[in-house]
Amino acid sequence: MSTRPTIAAVAAAAGVSRQTVSNALNAPERVRPDTLARVLARIDDLGYRPSVAARQMRTGRSQLLAMRIEPVRDGVNGVVGDRFLHALSEAAQRAGYRMLLCTASGDAAELAEYEQLRATMALDGVVLATTHTGDGRRAWLRDKKLAFMSFGRPWASDGSLGEDDASWVDVDGAAGTAAATAELLARGHRRIAYLGWPHASDVGQDRRAGWLRTMAAAGLAGVAVEATSEDDIEQALAVVADLLSSRPTAIVCASDTLAIAVSAALNQRGLRPGADVSVVGFDDTPAARALGIASVLQPLGGVADACIGGLVGQLEGSSAPERGVLLEPRLVIRPTLADPSP
Amino acid sequence: MSTRPTIAAVAAAAGVSRQTVSNALNAPERVRPDTLARVLARIDDLGYRPSVAARQMRTGRSQLLAMRIEPVRDGVNGVVGDRFLHALSEAAQRAGYRMLLCTASGDAAELAEYEQLRATMALDGVVLATTHTGDGRRAWLRDKKLAFMSFGRPWASDGSLGEDDASWVDVDGAAGTAAATAELLARGHRRIAYLGWPHASDVGQDRRAGWLRTMAAAGLAGVAVEATSEDDIEQALAVVADLLSSRPTAIVCASDTLAIAVSAALNQRGLRPGADVSVVGFDDTPAARALGIASVLQPLGGVADACIGGLVGQLEGSSAPERGVLLEPRLVIRPTLADPSP
Repeated sequence: MSTRPTIAAVAAAAGVSRQTVSNALNAPERVRPDTLARVLARIDDLGYRPSVAARQMRTGRSQLLAMRIEPVRDGVNGVVGDRFLHALSEAAQRAGYRMLLCTASGDAAELAEYEQLRATMALDGVVLATTHTGDGRRAWLRDKKLAFMSFGRPWASDGSLGEDDASWVDVDGAAGTAAATAELLARGHRRIAYLGWPHASDVGQDRRAGWLRTMAAAGLAGVAVEATSEDDIEQALAVVADLLSSRPTAIVCASDTLAIAVSAALNQRGLRPGADVSVVGFDDTPAARALGIASVLQPLGGVADACIGGLVGQLEGSSAPERGVLLEPRLVIRPTLADPSP
Repeated sequence: MSTRPTIAAVAAAAGVSRQTVSNALNAPERVRPDTLARVLARIDDLGYRPSVAARQMRTGRSQLLAMRIEPVRDGVNGVVGDRFLHALSEAAQRAGYRMLLCTASGDAAELAEYEQLRATMALDGVVLATTHTGDGRRAWLRDKKLAFMSFGRPWASDGSLGEDDASWVDVDGAAGTAAATAELLARGHRRIAYLGWPHASDVGQDRRAGWLRTMAAAGLAGVAVEATSEDDIEQALAVVADLLSSRPTAIVCASDTLAIAVSAALNQRGLRPGADVSVVGFDDTPAARALGIASVLQPLGGVADACIGGLVGQLEGSSAPERGVLLEPRLVIRPTLADPSP
């Protein structure tokens, strides 16, 4: 029942050497992109997994990577963290590692968990699932010489990265809202409003900035009206009423939850999302897809691959510590994004 | 930074003995419910975690439990598995265990992973996240004497459980659709249709059965019209058109995805979900909550607690292997569930 395909079988199926298969898993930057794609496809076909036991013997490591998992959250956008976890588990296992979950009530408790996991299970590394201003975890992990990558850049209050510009992967949220705003401008929209979050979070500020700079570059800062709401449908419904009084022809939102509220508010007023007022969300959740709401998709598979690649590089010395990587999100056009009504 | 609250601190805060705190974590059935609730609340307040190192030394075990995680799925209802994983991580850590994730392309590969994890990391036990007809995993795990619990009953083609009636927790799907149908009947609905899944899956058959038996008990088998669609909005939209030709006043659905499609189909025809045709989904997803769609909520926290409790019982001998546990879901009434239009 447990016959496992070998690295030799993968090499034969892909028509490459065993070393190339090994490189595809451990040092993909050394493999030509078309070869890499072919080898990874054969790995998936055959269900090949590097032997953990063989690696543990060879490397003296546990092949375990930890990540903190948050309590159940109920927002529409809560699925993003889980999609990342799925992608991360797949990427880790492809590279011969496994994800260990821990829960913690705060950053200090999280670090205490990692310390304990290293002491008791020879934990190899850590993926930080988020970062925030004043985040002490990256410095602590570096100080403890525990390998890590963060999904999220090291947010500094002055916007600088300084010495901390390594071991992170993030998605350029500003580029996402900028793409949405540019698409609306190209279709002839001018009064493009923004619905964001209160309590300027780093991620929230980033998303807002992409909209605002695109409006300003088009000379439309004067009609760049905005409002804020928590990620809560009821609260957002109330806020949208005010926002609509400025007669926007499109509303770019910081999340799909907010975009769903905007669509519902339009429906309540007999206005059609898309035909009467365009709406764009953020995170391309299943709910947005189900409702035909345009949204901005984060490349979570790419984030996961980069996190695992960075950790493998640190642990196996196959690459120098890399500078941070900012990935571009992609605008997904759906019926709520349309030309302005004539 | 890593000062950890002690079991003595929890005992003092809750006004109980250290043994009672230990029982609350490891043998909750020995603790009075009100005491148990108080102790667990103090554990959460203080962020108390049993020391993994101390346990490993005492028990000679790894304190690691494995679960297979599926590739990213995009359906609205995909979040259910993830909510279960969050609840499971919390319950495991409260009991001094941690969840290790693995990916696998099928049941045989999954079992090979568990075998390898036991050989390399002294894996203590396994949580099977789903079960299905012809599932050989439970028998294999029992044969290998690897502790396990399954979220899902051992589905037998003849409906019997036989010797396999242990080490499982499940939610009574039929009771969920029965509750939805009974609520609709009590409000005066008679033509209550059902939108289910094709390819009679065990879970799908179970949910359908609750609707059908409730209709039959009310003498309404003759108007128990039904249709099937994959869990896909576009396909469901086409199917709903047919279903509506039989003029149902309410539609009970096997999933929230299907309920969202029914609501969208009604809107397209100028009919109001709730006021004109009632709609009930299944799984109480964030999307259903956001859209005001009534749904059936699975008690995933209870499933997770029972899974971990069962594993701890098997591993620490604090309780005899228990018979399977079937938990009741709860109907969540929202605006799409209303009285029939006069």
